Amino acid sequence: MKHLPKPLTIAEIATLVGGRAVGDASVVVETVSEVGAAGPKDAATFHNMKYAAEAAASKAGCLLVPPAAESAPCAAKAKVVVADPQAAFAMLLGLIDAAKRARVASGVSPRASVHPEARLGAGVAVGDFAVVEKGAVVGEGTVLMAQVYVGADAKIGRNCLLYPQVVVREECELGDDVIVHSGTVIGSDGFGFTTDRKTGRHAKIPQIGNVVIKDRVEIGANAAIDRATLGSTVVESGTKIDNLVHIAHNVRIGRDCFIAGQTGFAGSTTVGNNAIFAGQTGIAGHLTLGEGAVITAQTGVMSDVPAKAVLFGTPGRPHREAFKLQALYGRLPEIVSRLKALEKKLGLEAKDAAAS
Amino acid sequence: MKHLPKPLTIAEIATLVGGRAVGDASVVVETVSEVGAAGPKDAATFHNMKYAAEAAASKAGCLLVPPAAESAPCAAKAKVVVADPQAAFAMLLGLIDAAKRARVASGVSPRASVHPEARLGAGVAVGDFAVVEKGAVVGEGTVLMAQVYVGADAKIGRNCLLYPQVVVREECELGDDVIVHSGTVIGSDGFGFTTDRKTGRHAKIPQIGNVVIKDRVEIGANAAIDRATLGSTVVESGTKIDNLVHIAHNVRIGRDCFIAGQTGFAGSTTVGNNAIFAGQTGIAGHLTLGEGAVITAQTGVMSDVPAKAVLFGTPGRPHREAFKLQALYGRLPEIVSRLKALEKKLGLEAKDAAAS
Amino acid sequence: MKHLPKPLTIAEIATLVGGRAVGDASVVVETVSEVGAAGPKDAATFHNMKYAAEAAASKAGCLLVPPAAESAPCAAKAKVVVADPQAAFAMLLGLIDAAKRARVASGVSPRASVHPEARLGAGVAVGDFAVVEKGAVVGEGTVLMAQVYVGADAKIGRNCLLYPQVVVREECELGDDVIVHSGTVIGSDGFGFTTDRKTGRHAKIPQIGNVVIKDRVEIGANAAIDRATLGSTVVESGTKIDNLVHIAHNVRIGRDCFIAGQTGFAGSTTVGNNAIFAGQTGIAGHLTLGEGAVITAQTGVMSDVPAKAVLFGTPGRPHREAFKLQALYGRLPEIVSRLKALEKKLGLEAKDAAAS
Repeated sequence: MKHLPKPLTIAEIATLVGGRAVGDASVVVETVSEVGAAGPKDAATFHNMKYAAEAAASKAGCLLVPPAAESAPCAAKAKVVVADPQAAFAMLLGLIDAAKRARVASGVSPRASVHPEARLGAGVAVGDFAVVEKGAVVGEGTVLMAQVYVGADAKIGRNCLLYPQVVVREECELGDDVIVHSGTVIGSDGFGFTTDRKTGRHAKIPQIGNVVIKDRVEIGANAAIDRATLGSTVVESGTKIDNLVHIAHNVRIGRDCFIAGQTGFAGSTTVGNNAIFAGQTGIAGHLTLGEGAVITAQTGVMSDVPAKAVLFGTPGRPHREAFKLQALYGRLPEIVSRLKALEKKLGLEAKDAAAS
Repeated sequence: MKHLPKPLTIAEIATLVGGRAVGDASVVVETVSEVGAAGPKDAATFHNMKYAAEAAASKAGCLLVPPAAESAPCAAKAKVVVADPQAAFAMLLGLIDAAKRARVASGVSPRASVHPEARLGAGVAVGDFAVVEKGAVVGEGTVLMAQVYVGADAKIGRNCLLYPQVVVREECELGDDVIVHSGTVIGSDGFGFTTDRKTGRHAKIPQIGNVVIKDRVEIGANAAIDRATLGSTVVESGTKIDNLVHIAHNVRIGRDCFIAGQTGFAGSTTVGNNAIFAGQTGIAGHLTLGEGAVITAQTGVMSDVPAKAVLFGTPGRPHREAFKLQALYGRLPEIVSRLKALEKKLGLEAKDAAAS
Repeated sequence: MKHLPKPLTIAEIATLVGGRAVGDASVVVETVSEVGAAGPKDAATFHNMKYAAEAAASKAGCLLVPPAAESAPCAAKAKVVVADPQAAFAMLLGLIDAAKRARVASGVSPRASVHPEARLGAGVAVGDFAVVEKGAVVGEGTVLMAQVYVGADAKIGRNCLLYPQVVVREECELGDDVIVHSGTVIGSDGFGFTTDRKTGRHAKIPQIGNVVIKDRVEIGANAAIDRATLGSTVVESGTKIDNLVHIAHNVRIGRDCFIAGQTGFAGSTTVGNNAIFAGQTGIAGHLTLGEGAVITAQTGVMSDVPAKAVLFGTPGRPHREAFKLQALYGRLPEIVSRLKALEKKLGLEAKDAAAS
């Protein structure tokens, strides 16, 4: 059980999140919990209608709810009504998380290897067995946890958090407030080769560009973002990337995008701001995807995508069309039956039963 | 060539695996081999009908066969008939593997970093440049190979084997006899954000839960299992997870499941016991999959799945229906031809040839 | 901006790449650049028709072009006409890259852990916190960067480059001139278990084989190649493997193949030489794929593939058939309309509007 740094009354919570207390505002909560498991000392949230029954039965001390649910029956001792209960709940989680962050080891471990010509800003922490190569620059307040690798001449901004075993290859750049999870590799060589047509042998095209990650980007575990052949592979500020995502050389991802797990981008594709990629999506190379495009799970995008389009399927089609086609696909047995009925009526029956 | 710790007669093998020797029981084998490559000093197995011809021609000293193949013609010097020849062969492999395991370095490397407030059980091995943070607990007989990371307050059970460069983040828990392969990350943050509707910017929802992995689970290389927002992401005992699998926050996987390579689970989905996921399967979030469900390769699951259902396709459909639809899909050219024949007969031919 | 080791005239570039200078051969370039961004001191290349407009407008000092584009209008100061401009450009990149490689730290770091019974060839470099276990052999000129792991009795050839945090497990073998990017794991256990039919519990089949990677193979970041149950998982010479690829136990990949990101191979499949796998392709187990087969993106291969076949879809079909079926799939609404028209004409209209 993780406790808030100090117990809070419902009234204090309402003030903190910019909401309104309903019920006994003197109730005190000490922790946070999932809505179905919450007890009288816990704050919980209700924002997904799928869990409406659990919310109604919740024994939470405090339930954060949207205005629409203000008067819904609810067993909780008190409610805080707030426009975005999920964001409000995230604030409570942040109080607990900040306390935890403060316990992360600080300073440069004597077991780390920091090159004398690397530059570390004030308050930088470097964990055991981490390596910071020659010419690398790390901004103030950034934490490089154990076993991280930062290559020569790489630049990492302020207040970043690199979890254990992140690799940032030479000359790559991260902005401020970037979070990178364990196992992720930034700046591996792009997949570029020329093929000798006579022998079929492939020769490497050296990849001498880099990767540029802007401010407030977060990248999950075991992702791989390749350096550009020339120039930069770019992820603009605020974009959030999930685990095991593959971003090839010279891709440019816009601001504030969401890229879910196991998605892959082939080389030189450009993505507009606020685009959303669901899990296991694949995007071919040399394409342009417009702002706010939404690519649903497992979709394969093979051509340019207009702004705000919603795509589904392989190859990806506008989702209304795709869903209609899926429905008709499911009706193929009926379509064939109707065809047979027509053939029978006209004496055009197929000679071979197997062909029916 | 890997040798058995000592040569075994056919009779000894039959006793070991609980089978019955057929042929010259005094034959001695020293090694194991693939059925097609086996020689007179090798034991091999035949359990996949795809390799029946190789089995018949095998020059193995000893062939482990199922009862149904007892009297099949076979060039091997002797056979051992056993109900599950694959399991029997695994026993022989285990004799060789155990000898190898015994050579793995033991003790705590002076080059490891073990926090003085971490607790290591009897016989724990910690390899070079491994890190065990404050408050972590490692059970007796567990091996943490080189460059492993175990976060603060993590708990690892007895007789576990963590290969080089595994990351177990803070507060996560592993049961007994768990095997984790290199590059796998347990406890990375779940992918949770709230989005400001006006600015389109995403704010992180701190992920303060953990991951709980139960006894006898094995996890392949470069997988990623995210910690829960609250509570735990759970993998129950005996489940086997392959390489590059992604398990999002708050997922619960049942007992004795198989999860093949590159499969991904979105958040909060629950999977029953003994379910099977073939490669590159994708499972949407907030779903419930029943016991014994089988999800075939590349299938995209978008709704709840009943117990023992077998699904195929994206979106996943019951496999009989899906295979029928696939067959009809392959007959679309014929369906259109039949439609044209009917139209011709009725004088309803499409005006535009392109529309035919 | 990365500079050539020394400025080159157009004439010198033409000589270097085996091409022919067109225009002012005394022009000097100092760097290389993307065609759209190139200035008068830059060499650039034009080989993809998608960028023809950018090439025509390019202000590059030197543009490398194919013979077909020799007389196309172009703003560049001079051209070098060459049969394979991409390969020629790769040579210029190689000049820059070689200068960078020469700066990589050499020698064995005092912070590495090299077992006294490991053997390192002349000129081997081992980075900080790298581990080379007992009995491992590393060929001359090979670079093991920081935090690499090389297991017991592994063999690594000459002039290989292993980037930070690569894992090569015990007994695995790499040929000469192999490049492996960060986070990749070679030799994790194959995913092999026997299942007790009564209890549903899975028992591990020990994986006592290895992985053999031949000369000139390159492997991207965070890939995973499993060791064989018995014998070897093999990647033949010259094959190039992208990020996050999964290769299961006992797979055999031929020479000079291309395997794009997030592709996965199930166990015991054999692939001929010069095959090409686009991104997110999945290949079932125990299959044989012929020489020169091409598997397009996201395709799922479920049966053997003849030489030179081009497959698309799940299940994969020959691409002409697959594209025709995709086109007809998109015309399902029209097909149903035509069916309705026929039914109307014959008075066979469906009774239920919902069924239309």
